[in-house]
Amino acid sequence: MERVASDYAAVRAQTVALAAPLSAEDSQVQSMADASPTKWHLAHTTWFFEEFVLQEFEPGFTPHDARWRFLFNSYYEAVGPRLARPSRGLMTRPSLDEVHDYRRAVDQRMAKLLASPLPDLARERVVLGLNHEQQHQELLLTDALHLLAQNPLQPTYQDDFENDAASTAGSSWRKFPGGLAPIGAAGEAFSFDNERPRHRVVLEPFALATRLVTQGDFAAFVDAGGYRESRWWLAEGWDWARREAITAPAYWSGEGAARRRFTLGGAQPVQAEAPLAHVSFFEADAYARFADARLPTEQEWEHAALTSAARLDRDAPALHELFGVVWQWTASPYVGYPGYRPAAGAIGEYNGKFMVNQMVLRGSSRFTPEGHSRATYRNFFPATARWQRTGLRLAREG
Amino acid sequence: MERVASDYAAVRAQTVALAAPLSAEDSQVQSMADASPTKWHLAHTTWFFEEFVLQEFEPGFTPHDARWRFLFNSYYEAVGPRLARPSRGLMTRPSLDEVHDYRRAVDQRMAKLLASPLPDLARERVVLGLNHEQQHQELLLTDALHLLAQNPLQPTYQDDFENDAASTAGSSWRKFPGGLAPIGAAGEAFSFDNERPRHRVVLEPFALATRLVTQGDFAAFVDAGGYRESRWWLAEGWDWARREAITAPAYWSGEGAARRRFTLGGAQPVQAEAPLAHVSFFEADAYARFADARLPTEQEWEHAALTSAARLDRDAPALHELFGVVWQWTASPYVGYPGYRPAAGAIGEYNGKFMVNQMVLRGSSRFTPEGHSRATYRNFFPATARWQRTGLRLAREG
Amino acid sequence: MERVASDYAAVRAQTVALAAPLSAEDSQVQSMADASPTKWHLAHTTWFFEEFVLQEFEPGFTPHDARWRFLFNSYYEAVGPRLARPSRGLMTRPSLDEVHDYRRAVDQRMAKLLASPLPDLARERVVLGLNHEQQHQELLLTDALHLLAQNPLQPTYQDDFENDAASTAGSSWRKFPGGLAPIGAAGEAFSFDNERPRHRVVLEPFALATRLVTQGDFAAFVDAGGYRESRWWLAEGWDWARREAITAPAYWSGEGAARRRFTLGGAQPVQAEAPLAHVSFFEADAYARFADARLPTEQEWEHAALTSAARLDRDAPALHELFGVVWQWTASPYVGYPGYRPAAGAIGEYNGKFMVNQMVLRGSSRFTPEGHSRATYRNFFPATARWQRTGLRLAREG
Amino acid sequence: MERVASDYAAVRAQTVALAAPLSAEDSQVQSMADASPTKWHLAHTTWFFEEFVLQEFEPGFTPHDARWRFLFNSYYEAVGPRLARPSRGLMTRPSLDEVHDYRRAVDQRMAKLLASPLPDLARERVVLGLNHEQQHQELLLTDALHLLAQNPLQPTYQDDFENDAASTAGSSWRKFPGGLAPIGAAGEAFSFDNERPRHRVVLEPFALATRLVTQGDFAAFVDAGGYRESRWWLAEGWDWARREAITAPAYWSGEGAARRRFTLGGAQPVQAEAPLAHVSFFEADAYARFADARLPTEQEWEHAALTSAARLDRDAPALHELFGVVWQWTASPYVGYPGYRPAAGAIGEYNGKFMVNQMVLRGSSRFTPEGHSRATYRNFFPATARWQRTGLRLAREG
Repeated sequence: MERVASDYAAVRAQTVALAAPLSAEDSQVQSMADASPTKWHLAHTTWFFEEFVLQEFEPGFTPHDARWRFLFNSYYEAVGPRLARPSRGLMTRPSLDEVHDYRRAVDQRMAKLLASPLPDLARERVVLGLNHEQQHQELLLTDALHLLAQNPLQPTYQDDFENDAASTAGSSWRKFPGGLAPIGAAGEAFSFDNERPRHRVVLEPFALATRLVTQGDFAAFVDAGGYRESRWWLAEGWDWARREAITAPAYWSGEGAARRRFTLGGAQPVQAEAPLAHVSFFEADAYARFADARLPTEQEWEHAALTSAARLDRDAPALHELFGVVWQWTASPYVGYPGYRPAAGAIGEYNGKFMVNQMVLRGSSRFTPEGHSRATYRNFFPATARWQRTGLRLAREG
Repeated sequence: MERVASDYAAVRAQTVALAAPLSAEDSQVQSMADASPTKWHLAHTTWFFEEFVLQEFEPGFTPHDARWRFLFNSYYEAVGPRLARPSRGLMTRPSLDEVHDYRRAVDQRMAKLLASPLPDLARERVVLGLNHEQQHQELLLTDALHLLAQNPLQPTYQDDFENDAASTAGSSWRKFPGGLAPIGAAGEAFSFDNERPRHRVVLEPFALATRLVTQGDFAAFVDAGGYRESRWWLAEGWDWARREAITAPAYWSGEGAARRRFTLGGAQPVQAEAPLAHVSFFEADAYARFADARLPTEQEWEHAALTSAARLDRDAPALHELFGVVWQWTASPYVGYPGYRPAAGAIGEYNGKFMVNQMVLRGSSRFTPEGHSRATYRNFFPATARWQRTGLRLAREG
Repeated sequence: MERVASDYAAVRAQTVALAAPLSAEDSQVQSMADASPTKWHLAHTTWFFEEFVLQEFEPGFTPHDARWRFLFNSYYEAVGPRLARPSRGLMTRPSLDEVHDYRRAVDQRMAKLLASPLPDLARERVVLGLNHEQQHQELLLTDALHLLAQNPLQPTYQDDFENDAASTAGSSWRKFPGGLAPIGAAGEAFSFDNERPRHRVVLEPFALATRLVTQGDFAAFVDAGGYRESRWWLAEGWDWARREAITAPAYWSGEGAARRRFTLGGAQPVQAEAPLAHVSFFEADAYARFADARLPTEQEWEHAALTSAARLDRDAPALHELFGVVWQWTASPYVGYPGYRPAAGAIGEYNGKFMVNQMVLRGSSRFTPEGHSRATYRNFFPATARWQRTGLRLAREG
Repeated sequence: MERVASDYAAVRAQTVALAAPLSAEDSQVQSMADASPTKWHLAHTTWFFEEFVLQEFEPGFTPHDARWRFLFNSYYEAVGPRLARPSRGLMTRPSLDEVHDYRRAVDQRMAKLLASPLPDLARERVVLGLNHEQQHQELLLTDALHLLAQNPLQPTYQDDFENDAASTAGSSWRKFPGGLAPIGAAGEAFSFDNERPRHRVVLEPFALATRLVTQGDFAAFVDAGGYRESRWWLAEGWDWARREAITAPAYWSGEGAARRRFTLGGAQPVQAEAPLAHVSFFEADAYARFADARLPTEQEWEHAALTSAARLDRDAPALHELFGVVWQWTASPYVGYPGYRPAAGAIGEYNGKFMVNQMVLRGSSRFTPEGHSRATYRNFFPATARWQRTGLRLAREG
């Protein structure tokens, strides 16, 4: 079996596995406008392959159900009218079972297609679709967490679902001398269009913390009245926190020793040595100011990650927890790189149309699928988003 | 088996039967803040018996699940804190199956309780609970209709679910001479507290239409630009229709011969001779003014219904469609009758606390359970409500 | 000079006198959507005479400024498009001086018209216009109070503007036997259309408090946690008070001995023996329930006011403070009397189109102009309105 | 007289001159939350000198009125609690005359202070205060324009107030080779803290249009259905335009030859050759995409402005309309430069706390005061702001 066929099978199976602990009821509900139902994630990722691969490359293509094109499109204006995003949770038909049938039917047709040699464009589309599906795997988990957190019964997604391992060592600073640095993806390996083109930037000397900010670090900020002092906050963040009555990270409750956080494994004690998650950019930025530091730019982060991995300077302390723990807010608004051009057609809507009023996050999280992390990856969310696994690493002038 | 026990079994079984065509997904979703999920209706009606009957009258009572008291309470402030109404749809646990288990468990305990002689208060509570459940049976259907109407696939609740039979004859006016008339419930038969005490009112001479306003009547109003002329409308209704872009009854779509309405049996053509449903008080009131008539007061309606039923004047035309077709908006705001006193305790919250900014509807609808209609019954909704089966009958001075 | 001419001169001069303490800046601002700027009151009351009297009855009529018809119309849809109500405060041109010029110009033309014999319809329109202007005189004061209350400097309208004289005696109950009672205006004297037609109602025996509820009475409700206990409140009122964070009457601040209320004479101590003002219907209704009483219906109030004035029962205690202190919330929603028909044309929009979701108030207030009070007068506001001088008198079953 | 004293006198007099055409009524009203009343601009700019200069440097300082500190503070959290921004228009006292008295009193005290040698910090504060006041001079005009535009009478600020001179020549492209470029202010001349520190960036080759986009250019976009095609728009901009029903630049009305725009000189025809103003970032960005171009980054703009001014390449076409016509949206989100540190204390709140969710504009406008323009100046507004004089200049890859 060709690599792309086995990757297809593996990624698709993983989505189903992630959805397995969730009932038909769990899979139906949209707990806020920014989230999507599990059932929708299952269907939309399938729709992607039907719309952008089968429709163009399968001989004698007929749609599984022509009406579903409307239901499971997301933001691709070019494909046609879409269901309003907050209405996703209202579509109780098709049922979860019917959506699983849809997945199986499309998977069979894809398997047949992938069994023969593919044109390059088709292969690129499949790889894009798998990366797209991996993004939705992470969203499936964060959306499920948000949903279960609304329930006073504090139900679990999976009892032993481990969220936060404690860091094994204290934090120190690693210095970087700066200079002209290459930024962005190059070469043949898959990357999203927003990671290109590769280009050079000037970096001033800077330093990065070797560890992530911990839950204990942030609890000290809370206990010091950090949410009640405007001096730590951007003006818009301060207004947001007042308006929304934000006084702690998302999913935290209680005070002092009774402080708990809700996780996919249920309610857990706050763990002082474990990395902080579920803060907004505004909270991350306020904490950094409180700690007499700042957030790194995305270029500093990328340069440091590559340098550190390359072990260029064996005497410097290593950077830990770059990947696989929490997404790390940066000081960088999300814009196109110099010379950035979105792909043509509907696929081109994937990234470029969101390049305003969002902040870049780097790294990857506990919820990010295996193989979906890399140093050039650019995640992005609005400055108020907290339902993702988002934390921070401090930076300062070098 | 005593009457109350057989009534209990029948009403409880009917709720389950009404819910049967709805899947776990359908039963989970709350399609707007005013509606509730089917699962919640199933659980809340059960909670009523657990809270107000078993807890007080079952020896050795222990709750089925103490935490559900919070989840399935509705507006009974006296019982304790409640889940915010718009959050009902977010409770994906307990599952639909667990709620059906809950129903069965409570039904078994109730059956045991009802097998022995009951104190009067307990029996009254059971009867109240059954009437309460019958109200929720109607809401279950109207809420399901609202949910399915959001779905572009236009799914059906039940294919052959008949909504609107055509009226068999044209409308004429029946005159009533007015005078001193008794209003309200008396005697031993069950009634809600808001139907009491019985009292006398002065009625001026009036006339009522013998038939309901039809879909064809209302289509003429729409086609004559009724929604675009302020002169037919109360000021608040006019503003509401502008703000919400209301241009036809709820669930209507299309124009002229292509005009359709969505029903529990799917999309159907508008049927000129069938009764109109799903209009707000504002629309009913505007139509009445357009038709050079007015809405009846609730006292006129009740007096006419009783008089007509008694066949006191055999030469006068009979009033048709008083019950079992659509609820009929009246000109009467919902207030307590002279000397009205709510019952003590949480039960007293049932009706009295809603006596402001609502309009009374009389009669009953196609969705109202058998045996739940009577001439003194007072239904009530805000002037903007349209998701109920609400229509109108014209009145004028006599 | 004929009576109507002298009335015209007196009412018009009184409006100008009431506006005199307010600067051009004060007169410009609309402090909330429900209020209007003083300048607008001055212009709109003038517009009424120009639109409904001069235009129809002045030979060779030409408008003062044709464009102002749009600016100073209020809710008369029949007259044409209107400025959105919340935009009234944005019209900085014409200036206050220009509006006073407008008043003078219309007054001169009206004086000329009134110097000759008038058709009956014209005379009726003038009388209606004067009654309309008197209503705006009261609004001018309540709107100015609301505006000045927003200013942290706590400015005064008039330093010695007395608001609340203490009651001279304690409260007792006066009983009324009920029976068939005539309600509404009859005869030649001016009344608004909503006071007619006169008709009979059945009243059950009832009792009214001889005095208004005082500030001290209500402070006891506040201190007893009345705003924190749902059992006193209508459900919608409870939700409103939570949502708006209402914890005391409008314009009250402070606690205990430091409790103050803002008035047109500046901030004043709460005066235990003086009548309460600036509560909503919801608060009035909640207080009545707390006091083991209820609000009177408007029919009870009218019947009692007429009976008491007629001194039919010299042994019964007299009702005090019926007029000229505060408007008194009743338990009656605002609807048309049996057989009510609005006047034809734009004038007919005056009252009838507001007959939904409002509660009737009876009596009159300290801010009501001389000669504008009568027992049949029906004032009305939504259940949440607090910026009017609104208080209450208790009732109970007789 | 020292330079700073004469500058002080000139800037302060200019503010009064700009306010002179506006009446007390005009000066009072706040036409939206983002705008401020003229009276507030007059008072707040005066408060700045009282708070940050007189209070610290005047011997025996006493405040003009201690309560005004609260009224006229703006966003300086460190100074204490502030009046909610949308409430500025509700403060009808102090009057416009009293605010002018306040200005004169502070000016006399400042004149006395400036007559003697000043500590450096005091002098810096005065210069900052004058630059701050110049910013408010521009806001005073844009806020007045917004206010007058609400009035159906279409009043003018000044009849012959010229807004838009036609460009004298067509547009071409000027190429820049890119490379390492210095960005930001250096040296002794005044600049805001956000223009520092000076640093180097890498610029790829690019080209800038020599002229601004004209009203005619943008009318072609409107006529081509630009507001109805999602492909030109960022996703958030598309949603914004739908939600707010945006179909043309602010202050435009009519179609085709009847197209007009409202200006401080009243309603004027759209002038095809004159520069476009009053578009949001979203509209500017959409237009650029429609024109197969893009917005310049702020670094490209600054580099081009300095290069062009230096006439380094005499064969290249000159850049026109860089300053004094309209502010030019750039593709750059507003963030701090590398190593940026806000000043200490309340003054430090001036710029840094707004560095999120805003876009940078470069150049200056017809409303910008003389001497307040420079190549390193960074103006910033949210992507939806349209009431400023904001237009655009196209860029593309070089």
